[in-house]
Amino acid sequence: MEKPYVVGIDIGAQTAKYGIVDARGNVLAQSVIVSNSQPTAEEFINDLCNGIRKLAGNEYPLDQIRGIGVGAPNGNYYTGTIENAANLTWAKNGTVEFVKMMESQLGVPVALTNDANAAAVGEMTYGAARGMKNFIIITLGTGVGSGIVINGDVVYGHDGFAGELGHTCRVRNNGRICGCGKTGCLETYASATGVARTARELLELTDRKSILRTLPAENITSKDVFDAAIEGDELAKDIFTFTGRILGEAFADFVAFSSPEAIILFGGLTKAGDLIYKPIVEAMNLNLLPIWKGKIKVLFSTLKESDAAILGAGALGWEL
Amino acid sequence: MEKPYVVGIDIGAQTAKYGIVDARGNVLAQSVIVSNSQPTAEEFINDLCNGIRKLAGNEYPLDQIRGIGVGAPNGNYYTGTIENAANLTWAKNGTVEFVKMMESQLGVPVALTNDANAAAVGEMTYGAARGMKNFIIITLGTGVGSGIVINGDVVYGHDGFAGELGHTCRVRNNGRICGCGKTGCLETYASATGVARTARELLELTDRKSILRTLPAENITSKDVFDAAIEGDELAKDIFTFTGRILGEAFADFVAFSSPEAIILFGGLTKAGDLIYKPIVEAMNLNLLPIWKGKIKVLFSTLKESDAAILGAGALGWEL
Repeated sequence: MEKPYVVGIDIGAQTAKYGIVDARGNVLAQSVIVSNSQPTAEEFINDLCNGIRKLAGNEYPLDQIRGIGVGAPNGNYYTGTIENAANLTWAKNGTVEFVKMMESQLGVPVALTNDANAAAVGEMTYGAARGMKNFIIITLGTGVGSGIVINGDVVYGHDGFAGELGHTCRVRNNGRICGCGKTGCLETYASATGVARTARELLELTDRKSILRTLPAENITSKDVFDAAIEGDELAKDIFTFTGRILGEAFADFVAFSSPEAIILFGGLTKAGDLIYKPIVEAMNLNLLPIWKGKIKVLFSTLKESDAAILGAGALGWEL
Repeated sequence: MEKPYVVGIDIGAQTAKYGIVDARGNVLAQSVIVSNSQPTAEEFINDLCNGIRKLAGNEYPLDQIRGIGVGAPNGNYYTGTIENAANLTWAKNGTVEFVKMMESQLGVPVALTNDANAAAVGEMTYGAARGMKNFIIITLGTGVGSGIVINGDVVYGHDGFAGELGHTCRVRNNGRICGCGKTGCLETYASATGVARTARELLELTDRKSILRTLPAENITSKDVFDAAIEGDELAKDIFTFTGRILGEAFADFVAFSSPEAIILFGGLTKAGDLIYKPIVEAMNLNLLPIWKGKIKVLFSTLKESDAAILGAGALGWEL
């Protein structure tokens, strides 16, 4: 009999969430450990494997688990390693043989990729991209990630690192400084932190009235900008319009590359809804070649946010 | 026995070249017809099929031809049609059922794609990309075309039109007007005509000395700029440096998308050699994420220019 379960693990900068998933995409059980306090990879993986064993218990024994899918920053599908992941204490410097170490502890096949690629697989298996063979997922969180699917397969590229669309250049000269060392990256404008940067810039460089002026500038978050926009604050609304325009212009270039059926948006900034959606679609269509104008779908993820990361990583487990 | 030959056809704005190719990539016979004087697609395809029959003759009879590969502007691999190809009198408006029409005349399977995709297949089968599974070919001719290969397959995208990298935006505001209706497209800077435009701009906007000032500005070609650069003309050399920089910046963004092993350059502008190669590589590496710096190959096509188009299209015939 086919083994009926997979485990999905989403490793973030603070926590690692993991859950047991069935073939229909139900998260049957889930739990979480911290991911930023273990000094070594051995200790983190020990904690994680203990957690999985406990969660599996008698109800979902390990010999009923078909595979384990892991989404992690800098996770490499080809090599099964996590390399120089700046936000993970135990993988900051050098290379962690993540897949090898987990497999030897649990005796279950493990597949690893980065978080955005995992989200793409999740979206294709359970979400807005079901039935699609060509789409791009853009994750709008603290940073901007991307997962690209062509002919039904995630694009990993020559070395396993494809799909860094958050680090394509959107502003060539005098662009914002990015954590990656470059300037003008999409991520510096279109992430949650990018929205906050735009707010601080606009407040400083203009005299426009705004509710946001009641907050200390250095503490403003994308959530504050959203709340202000919902209350009708014109400056806050313009911030989302600006963010959406930068995204839409970028999407037009992405379409020229792989001609996807849809671009799917995922992550915290999507809560802005029409505030960001309308300028995205408008700017994208304005910049598309005539053959594509009005034909490329822009969709919000349909996965429940609390489950999405586990589902996405877990979906990778079915491919093992 | 396997049929030992394919036919490769390269349809350009003035002529259509066609040839008979063997499995080792030898062009055994070739000929050419005009492509811009036939008022209807029927007449063009009649001329072409008559030419092929004559070329095949008794030596390479049609029943020994495994397939026919065609590279043409706006050729669509999925639908087998040529749609709204601005430079072809007989395909300017509307849709030509090219594959269906040729197959019914010759009784041999036909595959159609655009010229840059055909070049990519040729490069992978016979040229600089032999053994590679992930690369991008950039054709630098009158325009800028591109063919993208991922996991050994040409990327056609959802609708067959993927790989329009010449129409990604390189200059966001006040960019040059492109024939496609957009502004700032890579093609307006990095094509042969783009080089000539840069020359005219620099001559008009500066007082710099240059041999190019002896020519009527409106007649300057990329060949004139090349000849001047070879003679040591500083302005002409700067034109190639500028062109290379724009290309290298674009390549960095393309790498962030599909992480190719190599980017392969094809077409007339590659004759500029180091004049354009060095600034491309320098600008690309300056704009790549640290994981890719110094690791992405930039190569010139190794196909003989006179055969390349026929070989590229022909290579598609082997896949039939």
